[in-house]
Parts: sequence; structure tokens; C-alpha cells
Amino acid sequence: MSSSNPKVVDIHTHMYPPAYVELLESRKTIPFIRRFAGAKDPRYIILPAEAEALDKIASSEFETISASLLPGRPITTHYSSLAQKIHFMDTHGIDISVISLANPWLDFVSSEVAGETAKSVNSAFRDMCSTAPGRLFFFATLPLTAPPETLLAAIGHIKGLKYCRGVILGTTGLGKGLDDAALVPVFRALAANKLTIFLHPHYGLPSEVWGPRATEEYGHVLPLALGFPMETTIAVARMYLAGVFDAVPDLRMLLAHSGGTLPFLAGRIESCIVHDRHLVSEGKVGPRRRTIWQVLKEQVYLDAVIYSDVGLKAAIDASGVDRLMFGTDHPFFPPLNSDEQGEWESMTWNKEAVSKALGVDSEGAKAVMGGNAVEVLRLYDEE
Amino acid sequence: MSSSNPKVVDIHTHMYPPAYVELLESRKTIPFIRRFAGAKDPRYIILPAEAEALDKIASSEFETISASLLPGRPITTHYSSLAQKIHFMDTHGIDISVISLANPWLDFVSSEVAGETAKSVNSAFRDMCSTAPGRLFFFATLPLTAPPETLLAAIGHIKGLKYCRGVILGTTGLGKGLDDAALVPVFRALAANKLTIFLHPHYGLPSEVWGPRATEEYGHVLPLALGFPMETTIAVARMYLAGVFDAVPDLRMLLAHSGGTLPFLAGRIESCIVHDRHLVSEGKVGPRRRTIWQVLKEQVYLDAVIYSDVGLKAAIDASGVDRLMFGTDHPFFPPLNSDEQGEWESMTWNKEAVSKALGVDSEGAKAVMGGNAVEVLRLYDEE
Repeated sequence: MSSSNPKVVDIHTHMYPPAYVELLESRKTIPFIRRFAGAKDPRYIILPAEAEALDKIASSEFETISASLLPGRPITTHYSSLAQKIHFMDTHGIDISVISLANPWLDFVSSEVAGETAKSVNSAFRDMCSTAPGRLFFFATLPLTAPPETLLAAIGHIKGLKYCRGVILGTTGLGKGLDDAALVPVFRALAANKLTIFLHPHYGLPSEVWGPRATEEYGHVLPLALGFPMETTIAVARMYLAGVFDAVPDLRMLLAHSGGTLPFLAGRIESCIVHDRHLVSEGKVGPRRRTIWQVLKEQVYLDAVIYSDVGLKAAIDASGVDRLMFGTDHPFFPPLNSDEQGEWESMTWNKEAVSKALGVDSEGAKAVMGGNAVEVLRLYDEE
Repeated sequence: MSSSNPKVVDIHTHMYPPAYVELLESRKTIPFIRRFAGAKDPRYIILPAEAEALDKIASSEFETISASLLPGRPITTHYSSLAQKIHFMDTHGIDISVISLANPWLDFVSSEVAGETAKSVNSAFRDMCSTAPGRLFFFATLPLTAPPETLLAAIGHIKGLKYCRGVILGTTGLGKGLDDAALVPVFRALAANKLTIFLHPHYGLPSEVWGPRATEEYGHVLPLALGFPMETTIAVARMYLAGVFDAVPDLRMLLAHSGGTLPFLAGRIESCIVHDRHLVSEGKVGPRRRTIWQVLKEQVYLDAVIYSDVGLKAAIDASGVDRLMFGTDHPFFPPLNSDEQGEWESMTWNKEAVSKALGVDSEGAKAVMGGNAVEVLRLYDEE
């Protein structure tokens, strides 16, 4: 990055291509999109609690119900309109966005069609990026439910797609989590092709942990604020304990939400490992062990979607200022008390966190706001 | 605190009085203690996975099995010997320990006997402290399974006990979590009597989140390193969303493991609240709302049991250097490759974290190592 002309890059920003919206509209179980006569925008139903809330509404009410009582979130033009994405970028001074399909990606697609669906979605992303050359790049989506050969073939397709810089991945893997040995060839193929994995949560934690009052009284705060980052943390810790970072040394993972809670918990993870009788007795805690700190500093990147300098500083301390990358999570979390076409707190809070943690316009702040992403993800114009 | 004579205080350190050990020995389901002919020390079985592992061992093997293959942890003299506690303190330069019963406390005791059991356990703690006046104080234990009047009467008993400075509390409450409205009178009674609540995890997360490989391959790392702090985080977030910190303004809670992950996630919690349609539409996100940051700075204390300066700095940033208190978690996590009578990493790692975060022998470091605890918990000699 030339610091004289620093770029602002948003590496955590989602899009729903029209074909994906149609797919969601055709479904009856989460995730799905439903239209209601009384509401301007269709609703996107993504969490189990939202589907349960919908079930409690009698279908006779669908015509007349007030939009504020509908479950899920309005799926506005922010979700699928490229013009809106560019407007959001221009409003907030974002030079480049690395767009990705939002959760739960293709996790729900049947095995038979997953390969073709992935091809169609990834080609759609390539086409979107080509409409604004130099301003849009993307993370592709893997057909994880497809047979192994289709899955590996998809990586072959992805690596040839212009503007593609990696893949977005949930925590389910092939159904058994990311510590599944069957995924190692997938990780190896991604690493060999310099495709960064953007690890993103979706499933959160089992809903009983939120307690009996959560659904009625606490909105979506607990599953989104806690479930998401905890899911990411657990997924990476499982990969780490399974030895995936040893088995695939050139694996490069960008962790959503500043690593979930990994920077804060890394010390405790290390302590629990060296104090674990089982691991010690199995010889897994030898002097040449790669620590979680090494993984954080050498194989992991963190987004800066953390909404506070307190957490951001810990993320920087854990991974280094050259491994943090700014993001917004657009189109999620629109402002509720101001114009959606104006400023979003997702931008201002996260940008303020960078300024507070590193100093306004410091070299470190420029690196986090975009320089790191340009270098790590090679965000240069393609011929 | 006089900084010319700084005290080192351990506020996170557990004891099992003999009567409590007997209670655990009488039980067949977790938590329980079992003796094996082939092992020097009895084993303490506390986690579901440990009980499952025990079930897989044929009883015919119990006589001959190697100690290293037994589930659970050896319950050494460190658990119940006061002389060992004092030895640990002297070895590590700890002037004062604020001892507490370890998890799961009396959560499993039947309603009929909970009141008497609590009285006996708390009196035993008072008696232990009286053997080393000025060096030992304690957090008492509540009979949470007892009828409400017994529970409130227990607070009356506790407040009159010499050396008692608060209560240790799990996250179950009366069975519905700490956001249960029925607990508010308990919190009010504790606050009115200046009894600090030491919130400590035990139950972790539902075991399916650790995945199919965890039990066999990862030891206890995931439930202890991640489940514990996530449980604490969820419990406090639920209390916060239920308005408990508003309803009981003088509530004072000391959170184990530096608040679980709250300092790191506070920004995301705030963002998810102000962006939650349900909370906003119910008028719960007004300008006079007490933020989670305010709770962290005004009603919460954090222990410094976090094993790294990275997390400790975030904890200090979130709550302030005057609200952190050093702890060791003794007798858990003994050294596995050195003499248990010597130095423990639980001391050295956590002490190093304080030095690195705040500077060796700085005023801040002295405050965290003991000065804060002396002031907040009034750790002065009692007549």
C-alpha cells in the first residue's frame, strides 16, 4: 500500500444475487424469504426463533399485520442491489468492497444441485464485480453439501474466476464441523490456490443457553451479539486442537468479528492445554507445539468488525496491526432511527474504534482501514 | 491501600471443607468423588464427559487401572487442607486469600437440607479463616435450592459471619438463570448487606457444540477454556438485558475469568442492542439506557485470571484498573510437569500478565495484585 493514497476497504460486506433471493423465496424452512401484503419489503427469516414467531401468527392476519410485528428482517434493496452497495460505499468513503454471499450460504442446498448452484452464484458475483472494476472483489461460496469431487472441482472453478480472492465459509463444514479430517483436502486445495478463507458464523449456540426470557424479551441480541462470535471461537479452537493449522501450514483464515472471542481467550486456551492431563499424557503438549498465539500471528487474519476500541486493541495485540482488516457487515444492522441512505453506525463505530486504538490517520489505522486488505487479498485491478 | 506496604491478594481460590468432601463421596452422579484401589488420590468427577468415561471402564478394572487412565482429577490435599492453602500462599507471596467453595457449590443439594448444608459449609469457612486471622477471608455459599424464606434467612446468617465478604454464585440461580425475576429480592438482600457476588461458571455450554472429536481427543480444553467464560458472559448479558443492574443499582458483582468474554464483546453487544428492531420498537433503547459499558465500569469487578496481558488489557480498558483483582484458581490447574509443592503457572502466568499490562511494580499493578481487593472487599483484620 502507498500510504500517500490510502484505500479504504470493506472486507465484510454481503450481497444476495437475484438467483439466490429466488432460491430463498422458494423455501418453507429457514432460511427463507416471505412476502406479506401489509409490508413494503419481504421478510428474511433466518433464525429459529424468527420461524417460531412466524408460526404463531395466524395466516388470516398476514394481510393486515403491522410490519413492526413481523418476524425476521425486511429484505430491502440493500441486500440485492449493486447500485445500493455502491451508494453505501460512496456514502462512507469506501474505495473497495470484497463482497460475499451472506449466511447460511449454500449449507441448505441439496447435494445434487449444490455444485451447479455454487457455479451460478459464484459466476453472478464475478459478473457483479465486473460492473465496477477495481471497486469490487469477492469471496466465493463452496458447495459443501455436494459430493467430494464436486466440491474439489468447485475450487477449480473458483480459482479461475476474475475478482475472486477467497471463499466464505461457515462452521458446519461437511456436517461435522471444521475439525473434520475429511475437510483437510479442501483446506489444502484452498491454500494451494491462495484462496483466503473468510470464516463466518451462522448457527450460533443451542437456543436453550439464552434462557426462557430471551425470545420474548431480548430481541435477537443474545444469538447475534454472543452466539455468533462464540460459534466462530469454538470452530477455530476445534480446528486448532485437531491440528488443522499444522497439517495445512499455508492455510490463511480471515475470522469474522475480530476472531469472535479468540484474542481475549487465547491465554486461557493455552493454560487449559498445558494443564490438561489427557493432552499432556498423550504427548501433545511438547516444546515444539504451535501455540494458539502463533496461529493468531501467522495463519489468521481478523476483521475489525467489533464496534469498540477495547476489543480491537486486544485483536491487534493478539494478531498484529498488519493482520486486521476493516469491515462493515453491510447490509445487516441498518440504522433504525435515521435514513438508511445516510450514515450507518456499522461504519462509524468501527471506524472510530480504529482511530481510537491506533490514532487518526496513523500508519496503523491506514493499514487496518484498507492497506492490509489490498496487500493480503491482492486487490489490484485485473486485466 | 498503602502502596508502601502492598498486599498480594488472591480472590479466586477454592477450598473443599471435609464435610463437603464427604457429601461428594456419598454421591453417584456428578459431581462426586470416587476412590480407586490403584490410585493414591480419590478422583473428583465434575464434567458430564468424565462421568461418561467412567461408565466405559468395567468395574473389574477398577483395582488395576493406571491412575493416568482414570477420568476426572485427583483430589489431592490441595483441595481440602488448610495447611496446603497456606503453603501455596507462602510459596507464591500471597498475603491474603479470599477462599470460596468450588463449583458446583450446593446446586445439587435437595431442597430440604440445603439450608442446613449451607449453614454448615459457611460456618466451616468461617472457622478455617479464624485459624489464620488476617490472611483468610471467604465468599459464602447460598442454598439456592432451598425455599425462598430459607434462602433469604441464609443471607442473614452469612452477613453475621466473621471474615465473610460476599457469596460465590453459579449461573443457574433458582433453576431459570440469573435473569429470573424471582432472584431480584436475593440480589437486593446481598447488595443491602454489602455482600459482593463472585459469579463463577460451572455448567459451560451444551456438549454438542464441542463436536464429535472433543471427548476423545481434546481433553477438557474446550469446556474449560471456552465453555466456562462463555457461560459467564451469557449469564451477565441475560441479567443486563433483564434490567437486573437497573433494578438493583448497588449490586456489586465480581466476574470470574476477567468477565468471561464481556470486555471483548461489549462493543458488539451495544451494537446489537441499538440495531435490534424489537428492543427499539419497545422503547428499550432510549437515551437514558444504562449501557453495558456503564455496568462494566460501575457495578462489575473482574478477576485477573486470564493468563495473558492481551486479555487483561482489554479487561482493564473495559472496567478500569481499580476494578481488577488478582486470582489463581488454586487448587485447579496444578503443574503437570513439576512439583505441586513448587511454583504454579496459574500464579506466574497471571502475575506476568499484570506486569506486562501495567508495568512491574507500578501503582496499577499493585492495585490489581491486591490493593483493589483490600479496598473493595474490606480485607482488614476483624476484632
